[in-house]
Amino acid sequence: MTNPLRRYLPVLDWGRSYDRTTLTSDLVAAVIVTIMLIPQSLAYALLAGLPPEAGIYASILPIILYAIFGTSRALAVGPVAVVSLMTATAIGEIAQAGTMGYAAAALTLAFLSGLFLVALGVFRLGFLANFLSHPVIAGFITASGILIATSQLKHILGIPAGGHTLIEMLASLARHLPQAHAVTLVIGVAATAFLFWVRRGLKPALIRAGLAPRAADVAQKAGPVAAVVLTTLAVWLLGLQDRGVAIVGTVPRALPPLTMPPLGADTIRALVVPAILISVIGFVESISVAQTLAAKRRQKIDPDQELIGLGAANLGAAFTGGYPVTGGFSRSVVNFDAGAETPAAGAFTALGLALAAVALTPLIHFLPKATLAATIIVAVLGLVDFGILRKTWAFNRADFAAVAVTILLTLGAGVEAGVSAGVIISLFLHLRKTARPHVAEVGLVPGTQHFRNIHRHCVRTDPSLVTLRVDESLYFVNARFLEDLVLERIANCPQIRNVVLMCSAVNEVDYSALESLEALNHRLQELGIGLHLSEVKGPVTDRLRKSAFLDQLNGRVFLSQFDAWKDLVGGADAPGHQAAGL
Amino acid sequence: MTNPLRRYLPVLDWGRSYDRTTLTSDLVAAVIVTIMLIPQSLAYALLAGLPPEAGIYASILPIILYAIFGTSRALAVGPVAVVSLMTATAIGEIAQAGTMGYAAAALTLAFLSGLFLVALGVFRLGFLANFLSHPVIAGFITASGILIATSQLKHILGIPAGGHTLIEMLASLARHLPQAHAVTLVIGVAATAFLFWVRRGLKPALIRAGLAPRAADVAQKAGPVAAVVLTTLAVWLLGLQDRGVAIVGTVPRALPPLTMPPLGADTIRALVVPAILISVIGFVESISVAQTLAAKRRQKIDPDQELIGLGAANLGAAFTGGYPVTGGFSRSVVNFDAGAETPAAGAFTALGLALAAVALTPLIHFLPKATLAATIIVAVLGLVDFGILRKTWAFNRADFAAVAVTILLTLGAGVEAGVSAGVIISLFLHLRKTARPHVAEVGLVPGTQHFRNIHRHCVRTDPSLVTLRVDESLYFVNARFLEDLVLERIANCPQIRNVVLMCSAVNEVDYSALESLEALNHRLQELGIGLHLSEVKGPVTDRLRKSAFLDQLNGRVFLSQFDAWKDLVGGADAPGHQAAGL
Repeated sequence: MTNPLRRYLPVLDWGRSYDRTTLTSDLVAAVIVTIMLIPQSLAYALLAGLPPEAGIYASILPIILYAIFGTSRALAVGPVAVVSLMTATAIGEIAQAGTMGYAAAALTLAFLSGLFLVALGVFRLGFLANFLSHPVIAGFITASGILIATSQLKHILGIPAGGHTLIEMLASLARHLPQAHAVTLVIGVAATAFLFWVRRGLKPALIRAGLAPRAADVAQKAGPVAAVVLTTLAVWLLGLQDRGVAIVGTVPRALPPLTMPPLGADTIRALVVPAILISVIGFVESISVAQTLAAKRRQKIDPDQELIGLGAANLGAAFTGGYPVTGGFSRSVVNFDAGAETPAAGAFTALGLALAAVALTPLIHFLPKATLAATIIVAVLGLVDFGILRKTWAFNRADFAAVAVTILLTLGAGVEAGVSAGVIISLFLHLRKTARPHVAEVGLVPGTQHFRNIHRHCVRTDPSLVTLRVDESLYFVNARFLEDLVLERIANCPQIRNVVLMCSAVNEVDYSALESLEALNHRLQELGIGLHLSEVKGPVTDRLRKSAFLDQLNGRVFLSQFDAWKDLVGGADAPGHQAAGL
Repeated sequence: MTNPLRRYLPVLDWGRSYDRTTLTSDLVAAVIVTIMLIPQSLAYALLAGLPPEAGIYASILPIILYAIFGTSRALAVGPVAVVSLMTATAIGEIAQAGTMGYAAAALTLAFLSGLFLVALGVFRLGFLANFLSHPVIAGFITASGILIATSQLKHILGIPAGGHTLIEMLASLARHLPQAHAVTLVIGVAATAFLFWVRRGLKPALIRAGLAPRAADVAQKAGPVAAVVLTTLAVWLLGLQDRGVAIVGTVPRALPPLTMPPLGADTIRALVVPAILISVIGFVESISVAQTLAAKRRQKIDPDQELIGLGAANLGAAFTGGYPVTGGFSRSVVNFDAGAETPAAGAFTALGLALAAVALTPLIHFLPKATLAATIIVAVLGLVDFGILRKTWAFNRADFAAVAVTILLTLGAGVEAGVSAGVIISLFLHLRKTARPHVAEVGLVPGTQHFRNIHRHCVRTDPSLVTLRVDESLYFVNARFLEDLVLERIANCPQIRNVVLMCSAVNEVDYSALESLEALNHRLQELGIGLHLSEVKGPVTDRLRKSAFLDQLNGRVFLSQFDAWKDLVGGADAPGHQAAGL
């Protein structure tokens, strides 16, 4: 990793040991993933409000660029459900779906997102994605799944409808419900039911019928393709497009075009915040999948390089008629299970999709939109999991609050509001907790050199000594808290001669806390009470040595709390002890 | 404090024991503070861009309301320098200084600020003020002092000038410099020099001349009044107002009027963010002074009730022709030093100012604005202290960065940008630190039961056991970090049989961290390595018991790290130990 070229181009690592066996594995995986991706790409483009070919284009150059710059061996990059919904929401604000301006804004969104991801990667700021907590992500994905499924009902019902929040969508659906188109509804419901059955019942049925599990698996993966073929044939043979069934229509037979994202100041100003949110959500989804898969094969993911890989993929999408992409969960798992060993599998998938873009597009002219909607609905309902509410409620009300707010705001005010609020409330609740830290008064556990909370353990204490274990780093948010607490504790106890702050849990002391400790030291000195520290960690000691505090300290710094006890109370067997607490 | 009426009305506490001695002390303090406040109130109104009487009005009802609702015995509420500058900045955005709309917007600002403070108090959110770190406050006050002093130079020079940032102000001053008015300049420079001398040299000179220190002190406090009287007389006797010296002019002879703050949607939208920032800054300044003074007399301040007291004061200002107020540093110290014992001193001050509003206003007709500007300049330059940059640089670069950004942005982009950026950068740097926590590998300090960092201390370790002391709470920002770290540590050491996480510094485990611990436990189980915890604190144990983690744990939970060592290594004297580290 000392060579900067190899740091930024992981392809140089795996490329040099590429051989025939790996090639075969990668080719097999590529064929399976390509078959799966054709309907999925079309469907997600529909969800994003873009022409179907945008979904295919977004899966070609981005995959190749990720293969060059990314560190995951199995990640499959392309359009995904949540990012497609976020794209529709963001662009819907500034352009009408289906117009040229809309498709152009999608390019700008991908461009900005790519720039932002590359910048994060170059500045090694990948840790910022950690600010999204797991429960917030789970809540966001669940709520997005519901929003996405609801947004597709209009295609199943064959009606126009809109809205960005659940209530808006349901109201719009209810308003247009009388115009529901019977034939479309039949196709949509049949396709949905078929796909649910494929997902749940097909594989066991095939295995019962004697098929090898591996073949049953491939059959299950091909389910969406079967739905596409069957409904397309039905429309074509019965001429249903003339009876009002909405179809995909003419898709250009071409390789991805070279496109230039419009970069007007107004467009950029309108899209920069959505681009950041899309980048963060996309990165979090992608890195989660990549790390899960890498761990299974004991490979390693470099989050900062992943940012560069995903950024390059989005820049690629921006210049080839696509829209924002990321590493998708389902496609990556399929790629992994199908045996992909290197990112070359992705490159072969890109080739397959390029072939499809040139050769197969005329065949999907009669594909009903209702089938694509059914594909989306079945896929995203698998993401919905309200169990996170129950689990967090049992464990930690702060996490529960963050999830509940994220879900409610995502459903009620849209994806951007939901995920922003989730991050803010998580941080707020964490900071509120550190602002009023837990402080335990501790005593000696008899027969040991160990000190524990006097209220939880049967321990020995001494009336002349108060030992407080501060269970938090001392920094500006809680700086004054400790000072107040110590002064309050000693207020009515004239027999107290020494106060020991046991610092085993103090991981940081910032300048505000230093000032507070200095004030406390000064006050205790006036009162003739010693202030001592014990079990101060290395990094904190180093920091305190940079100030005059340790020199001015009206007491000593003890390596261990037991040393403090021996010195200040006079040995474990000295008189004057008493048992306290339970 | 069980009686809710007494919680919200501290006046019921101190009012019942009010006697003649206290009355005398309070009256003396009130006279001294009133004399000091008359020029100060006029000057700060000028700074805020308001007519001079607004400063007096803002000191009458607000003081009385604070006396009823506040908890500090010595705090003096009224206009202060920083809040006056912030008021000018906020209202300058939506109205022209000197117009009716401008004064009306000041009422709205006070009203919104009052509402916000009361709401924070009722919901007991006073801890939010802690999010401003001491260094950020120090940097903000220093930069504001420079901005304020610069903003007053136009009155000293007798020229029109504007701008909200230092560069804008200096550019505007430079542009208008050729029009500088000689007579005004003479008055301004003389008044400034006189006031600096009063502040630095008068008291020692008087004491040397044989005056009692106490009397010398009072003479020093009356210095600004002397400057006001002398320059007013000079203008009146020499008719300088006709030679172009800007004077205060006619001030209505009246008690504060009853005013109604305009509450149009546009006004509120424009002022709500400034009102929040003014409230927070005002509260922080006020609570710092109140706590400092209370500590000297061993009294207690209730921050949440303080919010209600200051909120009531601001609502009072909004309905009586004032503008946002808070507890001021200099006036409170004067009040305290003059012997004020209860908030009644404030009420008497309010009476004194009401008398002044009715009787003395004609006398200040000829008061030159340059004198008021000199008063402000001398007051605020006392707040400027760049020492905070040196001190934080030595102690902690993160604090230094926060101060430097706050100062630069306050000077370069205005007070609101400065203080907002200070808060954000402080939080960001703190969170970045917790995102990559310090983790120490520890061993037994020979002859003790104490465990310390193997790289800092000479300790005993065992090749089959890795003990990691995690120096941070485990929560979503660092959840994945520990998992990665443990897996990396054990990767190349096949002799490791047990991993102990020493949790003495883990103060919180949230749901994200729980998931991460579960994943780690699962992975170590697969590898046949035990995962143990030691020194887990009470609150964390309670939390973990709410999940299935402790039941599924592939190892044990030890009360102390020494218990873990005895059990896993086989006693302190078992073979196979080796010394490590230094």
